[in-house]
Amino acid sequence: MTDFAKTKAMFHIPAGVIYLDGNSLGPLPKAAAARVNRTIEAEWGEMLITGWNKAGWMDMPRRVGDRIARLIGAEPGSVVLGDTLSIKVYQALASALEMTPGRRVILSDTGNFPSDLYMADGLVRTLGQGYALKTVAPEEVEANIDDTVAVLMLTEVDYRTGRRHDMQRLTARAHAAGALAVWDLAHSAGALPVDLAGCGADFAVGCTYKYLNSGPGGPAFIYVAPRHAEVARPALSGWLGHESPFAFDLGYRPGRGVDRMRVGTPPILQLAALDAAMDVWDGVTMEAIRARSIALTEQFIAGVEAACPALHLASPRDPVTRGSQVSFRHPEGYAIMQALIARGVIGDFRAPDILRFGFTPLYIGEAEVAGAIAILKDVMDNALWDRPEHKVRAKVT
Amino acid sequence: MTDFAKTKAMFHIPAGVIYLDGNSLGPLPKAAAARVNRTIEAEWGEMLITGWNKAGWMDMPRRVGDRIARLIGAEPGSVVLGDTLSIKVYQALASALEMTPGRRVILSDTGNFPSDLYMADGLVRTLGQGYALKTVAPEEVEANIDDTVAVLMLTEVDYRTGRRHDMQRLTARAHAAGALAVWDLAHSAGALPVDLAGCGADFAVGCTYKYLNSGPGGPAFIYVAPRHAEVARPALSGWLGHESPFAFDLGYRPGRGVDRMRVGTPPILQLAALDAAMDVWDGVTMEAIRARSIALTEQFIAGVEAACPALHLASPRDPVTRGSQVSFRHPEGYAIMQALIARGVIGDFRAPDILRFGFTPLYIGEAEVAGAIAILKDVMDNALWDRPEHKVRAKVT
Repeated sequence: MTDFAKTKAMFHIPAGVIYLDGNSLGPLPKAAAARVNRTIEAEWGEMLITGWNKAGWMDMPRRVGDRIARLIGAEPGSVVLGDTLSIKVYQALASALEMTPGRRVILSDTGNFPSDLYMADGLVRTLGQGYALKTVAPEEVEANIDDTVAVLMLTEVDYRTGRRHDMQRLTARAHAAGALAVWDLAHSAGALPVDLAGCGADFAVGCTYKYLNSGPGGPAFIYVAPRHAEVARPALSGWLGHESPFAFDLGYRPGRGVDRMRVGTPPILQLAALDAAMDVWDGVTMEAIRARSIALTEQFIAGVEAACPALHLASPRDPVTRGSQVSFRHPEGYAIMQALIARGVIGDFRAPDILRFGFTPLYIGEAEVAGAIAILKDVMDNALWDRPEHKVRAKVT
Repeated sequence: MTDFAKTKAMFHIPAGVIYLDGNSLGPLPKAAAARVNRTIEAEWGEMLITGWNKAGWMDMPRRVGDRIARLIGAEPGSVVLGDTLSIKVYQALASALEMTPGRRVILSDTGNFPSDLYMADGLVRTLGQGYALKTVAPEEVEANIDDTVAVLMLTEVDYRTGRRHDMQRLTARAHAAGALAVWDLAHSAGALPVDLAGCGADFAVGCTYKYLNSGPGGPAFIYVAPRHAEVARPALSGWLGHESPFAFDLGYRPGRGVDRMRVGTPPILQLAALDAAMDVWDGVTMEAIRARSIALTEQFIAGVEAACPALHLASPRDPVTRGSQVSFRHPEGYAIMQALIARGVIGDFRAPDILRFGFTPLYIGEAEVAGAIAILKDVMDNALWDRPEHKVRAKVT
């Protein structure tokens, strides 16, 4: 039985803050500071270069990867950490395209996170030879999976609306059409149950600084289905993905399994923070997270719709097709979000008009949801957003 | 006047250790732990998502990049941090190849760090169409720069021997032949004066965890000559390299200048450690570093050759053509290095037979060099390396 009072106590949330932006940057797990400090002082400081062996730094990308694997239904040994999500998207796509010779199309949708599309665009430009990225509306994806498609590349949960694709169904459709499926789990890992192995996903990627709380710039992860792991050829063939990195051979030979998706030296301080953050998940089931996430999002939708008629739900109403966030639209969304933040309710704004709120049962409960609704009502009822200071655009929102 | 007593006091070196491996992983700057802790507790913990603006996280890759620019003769605003060195090699090569249409050859040498060669190999496989990596012996590079070469890709200082290429001369030769030059400064940045602008280098890349002391897995940097910065097209076109990342456009437009070489979310904890490490360089000139580095390497070579006749110098004897390291060969190099490490002299071993010692004037002086020579003499005179425990190979050496 997942104990959410216990998990909540494992985070530092500043006084007076209701944090509904854990889908953008998770809050600080209390254990992270001491853990990173130990890595710095006792490991880097005292062990110096020998820390790569003595402190187990070299194995961290796989060891911590296994902790994530459990949350996304991945086989042990099939997940490795490193780089950023964009780089991992590129790796997955490049390997998948090489495994589908004779086909030239990456199929994605307009609800995908733009960086995934940008990376695909960069890859097809480098490949040339007729490779192309085809982007359709999310609801048109299934109808566009045909025998021209090499790779279906989707983000399961839409970063703006929280709309959730049916991973099982779309993966099966891709396979039936002879294509491979690459899933971006940025808004899934730690947010809802994912069953990569059960769905037969070919590749998956995700980030750790959202629902997994690894801190700003924490490393990304990549999953390669075990049936592909000795076949997938890395396009970003770095030394730590080599079969024998410290032989310093002049020629590249891919490493064993998912290790071949490692590229360069892993970011040990960020990995230490992530490892500490993963301790929170001990004893937590994704089923319990999902049940509570649905309860919280339902509470929020009902409350906001009752209290704030000017806000229009942008997320699916059916929780089955919704991730762990709720979005509302309003033409003054930016200013409304600034007014909320000024009053301690932190969500975020996504252009052009979306107010986005993330619900993270590890540290958010019914009281926070009720508090957020009350403050949002006050902001709307009294037009507290309609002030010059809330309309100045910062660089990052 | 550079005060090396002052810089030495800014590092934590464990008692009893003579650290001659700062060319692999620099030691801990004393300020780093508190700095990272502040980033975790006061920034991540208290500011949460707003840290991207309030704490200046989003600008760190460029701001800290400017601190490095000064050490490598780069124009302000021409260096940006992120990813790993291997990724940055890929970016520089891909952009450079696109800028030299009609040519298909990347020319490099067998003394280059293997990961650079691996990444080039991965890129030419993805490009297809006759692109190729041509690798010659270091001394044959100049004679092979002809009008088939698109890009000359070299590491200035050889990671094994410390042999140094003439960056000015080879860059000029590349340009005369109509090629571009990509320089890897892994063993140059912070080790010796580099004059990227003066040499007319086109692209440069480097890592920060060696002579710049950013800690395990610290981010890499990339330099794009200002004359190319609005032309170079990023192959790894991630959202933070977009002209307007938070517009979330579906189409990619490269950002301004070197910012387009940003890819994904930057590793803020590692950047905080690097920023603290860069404080050590305030008031330090690369000319003073170089003069002292040469004095230390000359002292070490003379001392070892006098004391240990079984060791054969693998580095150039002329300091002008040598980086800030000294390497010796011995068939039992691995065991000898293990015996040294057991006695507090930390260098490293590079297959098949190289003992490698880095000299880093920020925290190494004549006394450490003399101490290392004395211990090495003891190890050799008394065959202290010839013990089973020194012959067991660890995964990373």
